[in-house]
Amino acid sequence: MSVIGLNTEYQAAIQHKIDQKTKPVGSLGLLEDIACQLALIQSQKHGSLVDNVSITEPSVLVFAADHGISDEGVSIAPSAVTRQMVLNFINGGAAINCFCRSNRLHFKVIDAGIIEPINDEYPDLVKQRLGSGTNNFVNQSAMTAEQAEQGLSFGQQAVETLISANCTILILGEMGIGNTSSASAILSALTDESVDKCVGVGTGITDEQLIKKQQLISQALSRFNSKDPMVVLKEVGGFEIAQMVGAIIAAAKVNIAVLVDGFIVSTAALLACKIEPNVRNYLIFAHQSEESGHQLLLRKLAAKPLLNLGLRLGEGTGAALALPLLTAAASFYNDMASFEDAGVTV
Amino acid sequence: MSVIGLNTEYQAAIQHKIDQKTKPVGSLGLLEDIACQLALIQSQKHGSLVDNVSITEPSVLVFAADHGISDEGVSIAPSAVTRQMVLNFINGGAAINCFCRSNRLHFKVIDAGIIEPINDEYPDLVKQRLGSGTNNFVNQSAMTAEQAEQGLSFGQQAVETLISANCTILILGEMGIGNTSSASAILSALTDESVDKCVGVGTGITDEQLIKKQQLISQALSRFNSKDPMVVLKEVGGFEIAQMVGAIIAAAKVNIAVLVDGFIVSTAALLACKIEPNVRNYLIFAHQSEESGHQLLLRKLAAKPLLNLGLRLGEGTGAALALPLLTAAASFYNDMASFEDAGVTV
Repeated sequence: MSVIGLNTEYQAAIQHKIDQKTKPVGSLGLLEDIACQLALIQSQKHGSLVDNVSITEPSVLVFAADHGISDEGVSIAPSAVTRQMVLNFINGGAAINCFCRSNRLHFKVIDAGIIEPINDEYPDLVKQRLGSGTNNFVNQSAMTAEQAEQGLSFGQQAVETLISANCTILILGEMGIGNTSSASAILSALTDESVDKCVGVGTGITDEQLIKKQQLISQALSRFNSKDPMVVLKEVGGFEIAQMVGAIIAAAKVNIAVLVDGFIVSTAALLACKIEPNVRNYLIFAHQSEESGHQLLLRKLAAKPLLNLGLRLGEGTGAALALPLLTAAASFYNDMASFEDAGVTV
Repeated sequence: MSVIGLNTEYQAAIQHKIDQKTKPVGSLGLLEDIACQLALIQSQKHGSLVDNVSITEPSVLVFAADHGISDEGVSIAPSAVTRQMVLNFINGGAAINCFCRSNRLHFKVIDAGIIEPINDEYPDLVKQRLGSGTNNFVNQSAMTAEQAEQGLSFGQQAVETLISANCTILILGEMGIGNTSSASAILSALTDESVDKCVGVGTGITDEQLIKKQQLISQALSRFNSKDPMVVLKEVGGFEIAQMVGAIIAAAKVNIAVLVDGFIVSTAALLACKIEPNVRNYLIFAHQSEESGHQLLLRKLAAKPLLNLGLRLGEGTGAALALPLLTAAASFYNDMASFEDAGVTV
């Protein structure tokens, strides 16, 4: 089964419904675009025009993994912090946990391949390990082709439990020391944009570290010459990125909208769009992060992000913060009076 | 009682608490500013540093009134629509009602002086009428000095019921055909910025109407020469604007944070700051609207708006949409683990 494009024959009826609401035409800005996109996605799913947009069981999946490139000292923290943060997620102490509670979102963290596994079992922890961190991709492939393929399957598997729970909005987040290096390399490889434009300071490295990060990524990209998304993923990707690509494609296949977080998740979205172009219809971009490269990537995907709060944390935090805007868009689409209903002069 | 400036001796402790959270310093962007501001406001109220920020009983007050200038045909709709929309608010059919439901906000609409009063009583309708619409301010004062003063008292009165309900966040909205003309005139009068820069298309007038709107406002401003906020309010203000000024000052006096909506509410906030400069400490700017003049006004108040969604509706919609960001800021401030709590390597 592949991802199906949206049936645009519903578009006119959806737009008419929005334009009849008691407000000047277009005055709800981006919220109108979101309402229209959700109505199209859900009409596609139901096979006919839906009267109402449903936001049910919105769920955050945070994929965590380690990266061989972090040995090079181009991150603000050592790889050990990835595992420490996974434990923080499990204990409910991270920013994403706070935002899940305040915005009533389900939460799971997936060990996609951190260095040292967590032996105990926890209700919020899913183990889908592709290995103990990727290889340092500077001089060798980050992972094997088999690991990349298995990553897509694992991502799909994580979404299957959400499908049976009637989830209509999937939020993806990530944790992985070193993963902005991987994301920058993917962006440059897929788009031919220069490494300089694709690499940023991550969560806050020095200028010296930044130059080294750019050099290492250039070196890695000189190892191969392909725009094939599965090759790029294998060569410079990460285990969490591979699984997010699989999750995004799996969600789009069953008409679940994907609320995309920051730079890392956006590169997974870009890979997913290269594999299945119709995926783009199911993506909603939550925010523009401070990471340079993200703005470039958003332009490539013709995305209009909902928020611009100066975030640079990851974990799905920007997407979790944007969820209430989707709920509000559904609310006005479903419940706002029309001019006729309210007796308001057009 | 006047509005007291915030005690900045708490600032260092608040910032330290934020910087010890399990995230790179500053990585939650504007949310960190909001958490800090709310903690300062609530510490001021309690007379000592608060451990937690409380968002309790957030409430929307929509002030509605009519404007004599709408006789000039510089709006997209006739004055009758103000009353029709008040009935729509009462019946729960407007955009602001939808957003109050989706974000769990209390709601009241205040008749501050629409042309034809609503005779029946409704639980969500408060009647504080200053008259049946203002005078057309082109050739005469919009209201008397007594009406302007009474407006401030009425605004204060509306806030008093919220104080007894333990509201910590006040959201203001407005409805009034013609009120962007009034807001533009106030902005130009208070700041000496040219009428051209202060006047926009409102919810969507033609170029011809825009030129006429600018001419009429210039004519009105030539009638008087004063930057006294009470004079400006009397000369070119509106009944809903007068009451919002009173509400903002009353909220700031008792350390309630005010979440400011779009252009019209921002001009009320500007007037309030001119009357009581410490008011500025209690203001949080929800969004940047599409209305030209709003951006200028936000710069004058050194405001960093939380949202930029292309909204141009009013009613308090932008502020209602931003409330979950305040809740999220409180959530991370209160509940997120510190590096020490979580055993995460600094």
